[in-house]
Amino acid sequence: MERDKQHIEPKITLLGAGPGDPELITLKGVLALQRADVVLYDALTDEALLNYAPKHAIKVYVGKRSGEHSFEQDAINKLMVDYALNYGHVVRLKGGDPFVFGRGYEELDFATSYNIAVTVIPGISSAIGVPGLQQIPVTHRGMSESFWVITGTTSSGAVSEDIYQAANSNATVIILMGLKKLPQIVDIFSVAGKNNLPVAVVQNGSSAEEKLVIGKVDSILSKVADAKIAAPALLIFGEVVSLHPSFTKLIKPYVNIA
Amino acid sequence: MERDKQHIEPKITLLGAGPGDPELITLKGVLALQRADVVLYDALTDEALLNYAPKHAIKVYVGKRSGEHSFEQDAINKLMVDYALNYGHVVRLKGGDPFVFGRGYEELDFATSYNIAVTVIPGISSAIGVPGLQQIPVTHRGMSESFWVITGTTSSGAVSEDIYQAANSNATVIILMGLKKLPQIVDIFSVAGKNNLPVAVVQNGSSAEEKLVIGKVDSILSKVADAKIAAPALLIFGEVVSLHPSFTKLIKPYVNIA
Repeated sequence: MERDKQHIEPKITLLGAGPGDPELITLKGVLALQRADVVLYDALTDEALLNYAPKHAIKVYVGKRSGEHSFEQDAINKLMVDYALNYGHVVRLKGGDPFVFGRGYEELDFATSYNIAVTVIPGISSAIGVPGLQQIPVTHRGMSESFWVITGTTSSGAVSEDIYQAANSNATVIILMGLKKLPQIVDIFSVAGKNNLPVAVVQNGSSAEEKLVIGKVDSILSKVADAKIAAPALLIFGEVVSLHPSFTKLIKPYVNIA
Repeated sequence: MERDKQHIEPKITLLGAGPGDPELITLKGVLALQRADVVLYDALTDEALLNYAPKHAIKVYVGKRSGEHSFEQDAINKLMVDYALNYGHVVRLKGGDPFVFGRGYEELDFATSYNIAVTVIPGISSAIGVPGLQQIPVTHRGMSESFWVITGTTSSGAVSEDIYQAANSNATVIILMGLKKLPQIVDIFSVAGKNNLPVAVVQNGSSAEEKLVIGKVDSILSKVADAKIAAPALLIFGEVVSLHPSFTKLIKPYVNIA
């Protein structure tokens, strides 16, 4: 579609789509999509959300899926600015919340360097929403006064130093993008003396393909293997996992012995 | 309104309203409100959200505001179950996310003990959404691989032990309900050698009354006093605060000297 460039007001909305279920987007998010000229969307967002955008809007997939051509962050930044300058309002639709390991600030910073106005609309982060949908509270009086959210995939490829600190803390520990590192992470909690700490692993949280595995630091690796859990998955380490009904079933034999 | 009790199916939806702005509720949340027979709502939720509930729905304020009659958690639990048994679908509308210091699990547990089905709908937690709206990312490549969310108000009244651990960690530290304890919290970060760590304090995040103060561990107390910041407020300790434009202005004189 040709546009009169004189009337184009470039602007960008960094929009969090939530953890997967398209009904977990915010009203503000839907309103932004309805006013989009271009939508740049990730692999972890549900394509049903694109239906909120006007028919004339250009929809561009810029996600990374294994085995497919993947967009580099630099390419996404440039595309986003280029579309804004040429078409007006770009909605950058990202899984979860834009600033929770979403590289959202890099996009904001790049756009700002071109003097393009950026609005941020938060999304439900899977870090909180996915445990919550499973009725696992990230905090609970008398059990957890805090939760610590950590990436399992650092830019160096090593396990984050923060996971070592977290394993020695009282916090509920939530690790995103950590499935591949699960053996190392389990070791870190073992070394910290947390062999009996409850652990949950949730694959494809909030979607129809959701899978949940519950165990302890000692047992979670074999359970994850048995259930053939695959990425994307979220890891929850903490006493709060014991509040899940299937954890109660898990420990019943021991309760009977006592 | 009289109802035929034979046709009542008691159920409860624990619904997160988000940080304050009524447009930051999810679509799923609006759909739940539209199907409510009763809405029990907190002080930190916007009353505009009640308009999504049907006209016949009973709306009950159960929040705690200083100087007013305050509901005890036990009373809220009982009200919620009583309404569900007598009227059907109770939407328990809570500020932020139901499981982030919201005592949501206590409500879920109580309802479950009456065999009442409970659905959880997550909300945008102010812990992530309020920094995000200020364009302060809770994580950023090369700067922060994690964020740690802690309550400033424990059941004992003391500062959480987790804040001592957090002050010595690499995480972005976000403290909710911590304004009254700010002097003690600042001391904890000082003792950890973090006098120069950037700090942001946000009052009434996401609402029209939002106020932001930016400083460092060393200077934040006087800045908060000057700006007359009042509760509810959120505290952010971390290098990511330096990404906010007003922090850059703050340090300009030092940059010029170097």
